[in-house]
Amino acid sequence: MKKPVISLLLVLNSFLLFAQTKEELTIKEIYKSSLTNSKCYAWLDYLSNSIGARLSGSDNAEKAVQYTKSQLETLGFDRVYLQEMMVPKWVRGEKEIAYFLDNKTKVNIPVCALGGSIATPKSGLTAEVIEVKSINELEAWGDKIKGKIVFYNRPMEPEFIETFKAYGNCVDQRYAGAKEAAKLGAVGTIVRSMNLRLDDFPHTGNQSYGDLPKSQYIPTAAISTNAAELLSKTLKTNPKLKFYLKQSCQQMDDVVSYNVVGEIKGSVHPEKIMVVGGHLDSWDLADGSHDDGAGVVQSMEVANIFKNIGYKPKNTLRVVLFMNEENGGRGGDKYEELAQANKENHIFALESDSGGFSPRGFSIESNDAVFNKIVTWKSVFEPYLIHSFVKGHSGSDIAPLTSKSIIKAGLKPDSQRYFDYHHAANDTFDAVNKRELELGAATMAAMLYLMDQHYAVVEAK
Amino acid sequence: MKKPVISLLLVLNSFLLFAQTKEELTIKEIYKSSLTNSKCYAWLDYLSNSIGARLSGSDNAEKAVQYTKSQLETLGFDRVYLQEMMVPKWVRGEKEIAYFLDNKTKVNIPVCALGGSIATPKSGLTAEVIEVKSINELEAWGDKIKGKIVFYNRPMEPEFIETFKAYGNCVDQRYAGAKEAAKLGAVGTIVRSMNLRLDDFPHTGNQSYGDLPKSQYIPTAAISTNAAELLSKTLKTNPKLKFYLKQSCQQMDDVVSYNVVGEIKGSVHPEKIMVVGGHLDSWDLADGSHDDGAGVVQSMEVANIFKNIGYKPKNTLRVVLFMNEENGGRGGDKYEELAQANKENHIFALESDSGGFSPRGFSIESNDAVFNKIVTWKSVFEPYLIHSFVKGHSGSDIAPLTSKSIIKAGLKPDSQRYFDYHHAANDTFDAVNKRELELGAATMAAMLYLMDQHYAVVEAK
Repeated sequence: MKKPVISLLLVLNSFLLFAQTKEELTIKEIYKSSLTNSKCYAWLDYLSNSIGARLSGSDNAEKAVQYTKSQLETLGFDRVYLQEMMVPKWVRGEKEIAYFLDNKTKVNIPVCALGGSIATPKSGLTAEVIEVKSINELEAWGDKIKGKIVFYNRPMEPEFIETFKAYGNCVDQRYAGAKEAAKLGAVGTIVRSMNLRLDDFPHTGNQSYGDLPKSQYIPTAAISTNAAELLSKTLKTNPKLKFYLKQSCQQMDDVVSYNVVGEIKGSVHPEKIMVVGGHLDSWDLADGSHDDGAGVVQSMEVANIFKNIGYKPKNTLRVVLFMNEENGGRGGDKYEELAQANKENHIFALESDSGGFSPRGFSIESNDAVFNKIVTWKSVFEPYLIHSFVKGHSGSDIAPLTSKSIIKAGLKPDSQRYFDYHHAANDTFDAVNKRELELGAATMAAMLYLMDQHYAVVEAK
Repeated sequence: MKKPVISLLLVLNSFLLFAQTKEELTIKEIYKSSLTNSKCYAWLDYLSNSIGARLSGSDNAEKAVQYTKSQLETLGFDRVYLQEMMVPKWVRGEKEIAYFLDNKTKVNIPVCALGGSIATPKSGLTAEVIEVKSINELEAWGDKIKGKIVFYNRPMEPEFIETFKAYGNCVDQRYAGAKEAAKLGAVGTIVRSMNLRLDDFPHTGNQSYGDLPKSQYIPTAAISTNAAELLSKTLKTNPKLKFYLKQSCQQMDDVVSYNVVGEIKGSVHPEKIMVVGGHLDSWDLADGSHDDGAGVVQSMEVANIFKNIGYKPKNTLRVVLFMNEENGGRGGDKYEELAQANKENHIFALESDSGGFSPRGFSIESNDAVFNKIVTWKSVFEPYLIHSFVKGHSGSDIAPLTSKSIIKAGLKPDSQRYFDYHHAANDTFDAVNKRELELGAATMAAMLYLMDQHYAVVEAK
């Protein structure tokens, strides 16, 4: 009885060796296709330079829907379609103005309203400033906050290697700062930009008044890091200085918008769906080339790579360009609502929403057994300098997906430069390197290819 | 007899655990120091923006010697000194001019002379162009090369993940192209810039006429990648087009210059020397912020980090800022000459000369046993996203070092953007990200720290 068993083992072994080599070759083709024959950089050029900023509800967001749909239609999908939804429409209005008066010297401050903020009175708002390093500090100030502008000035901590950790430790000041200060009678809030550099760019981003009654809303804005340093320094010698803020932003009625979806039916398991995506909307201060033009065109490039190398997925592949990640998340919600209504089975979702920088790895949301299986794929990624596989957040747009045993992942690019540009006027096309963008697209395609090949094994874990 | 053995193992185990934890803590301090308290970015700002381009033999190169020496003197070295040598002095002269005439249309071409090239006649040089993709192709053209300008147009290959491989496959056209074409009677050569992007920057770099008699030298220059594409396309329809080149560069007499050295005597093995360095000189078209201002200030930062965290090396540590890497290598040669004269024992040399981008790992020159030992340190680097340990070239300045059983290494930063800037007018301070620079310095300090701690073990391998 021994002989047959040995033979079988040999057969299995050669099969595994063959399988591995075939996979390695396909992944080599994927990277080569992306670095030599990709469209993602040209798509990003168009999205950034011919369309521009794409805040939800804007004309540009609509143009981006139509443009990406038309481009997806050239890539051989079985079906390209839109998913309609209502999205919030917030408009910035006139360029904001801020300055402080240090005795008689007027010091102008680079400023931008935070997304969702109300306007100041037309003539602006003038008040003394209370500087705090955290929302928790507000309580100690008690009544003194009444009638003042609260200035949140806790910097991002430089010592984290992953800059998103520093962002996570800071962003409550931007998101909830106005709501909390309003409760204590502040007339406005300003926040130090979420930026690790000292420079002159104010960084916008979403904020929420939560369940505060509308009558208690107060205007809120971000100031540049250089301005935050200067204001803080000046307050030490002149704590009674007056700060002036004028902004005319407003929340309009919700308007119609769309997710854009391209679908390739799975050749073996059409009922099992893999999603790859990024978000079409951006903030309004710049092109949003990193956030998240990069993720959009990389997701589209995955389909282009598969087309170029002739790879037909076994499972259904959907490229999903989500709308309204920045200030509402309605695109992700709508996608999941329709998935549930259609009783769809999603097995994998991959998002790119951390910038178009050199890819370093993946952040994976799964149970330990699945994670440990995925980590065994590291060896095939290492020739492409992809080493970092960690458990963690995947992406905001795919967060609502609840299919049973779905695996989610986020592309992890190098994060050092991300917050230099995030939500600021310098998040433009020239800040994206073509090769870094293409390597990210290839890394996503390679992960989808491996998941497509091995989902049955992974899922059995 | 069993019990004592178990106890001993336990003791050894706790020692190892303790040792590892102490090392991990020190490395954590190293990174924190660099990210929160470094001087390297301010030094680079001064080198780039207050001094500027630092070609060997130039006034700026001398200023850089004096500036870095004065800065090293603030860092608590036992000794800061200069090593004198003669260096080549090549000057570019007036801005070069190039164009071609396509029928009657004059098309201007971004151009720069290659380092070491001779001038054209004062009125310039006009000739027909023969395009080749390699030096090997010249032979097939034979006599037809006489009186022509040879145009080397083999692009860097985009499919390599490590861009230095693509550079290595191309740079013979720049380095030896003129010499080989001159042998066949060409009157000049132009070369497509060593650049993976399509843009308008010509990239200079060293070239050599080898042992060609001076009377046979011909002028040689680089043109931008966009211009190379255009010229090649135009040659297809108009192979007889005339190309005009004018440059007035010249090789002057050698002049005095210096390496700058800062030395901390080893507390245990003062006779064993570790070197960390980069090169002070740059090309003349830009600040040389990546090549190699970054390596200079990172090497200086290593000393600053050790000072800040209070680490005293067991072995002697030298920060060496080499002169003349770009067009002669005299600094590296002089350093080795003095090391031999003084019978010095160098155990380790680490160079940073691949740009100030996010560090990814090290390229190590050693035997396999030593390499395998060093690779075991990967685990302490991985929290800092340093994963790539490969065998390979360390650095040009440390190449001459011949101490018995010396280990050499080069810092390997992310290479995707390097050739966007290399030897071109856009290699400027704004192209360097502060955090990426600091992470590189920390990674170098961590490697020197581990080598300092473990050299005896490594060397025993």
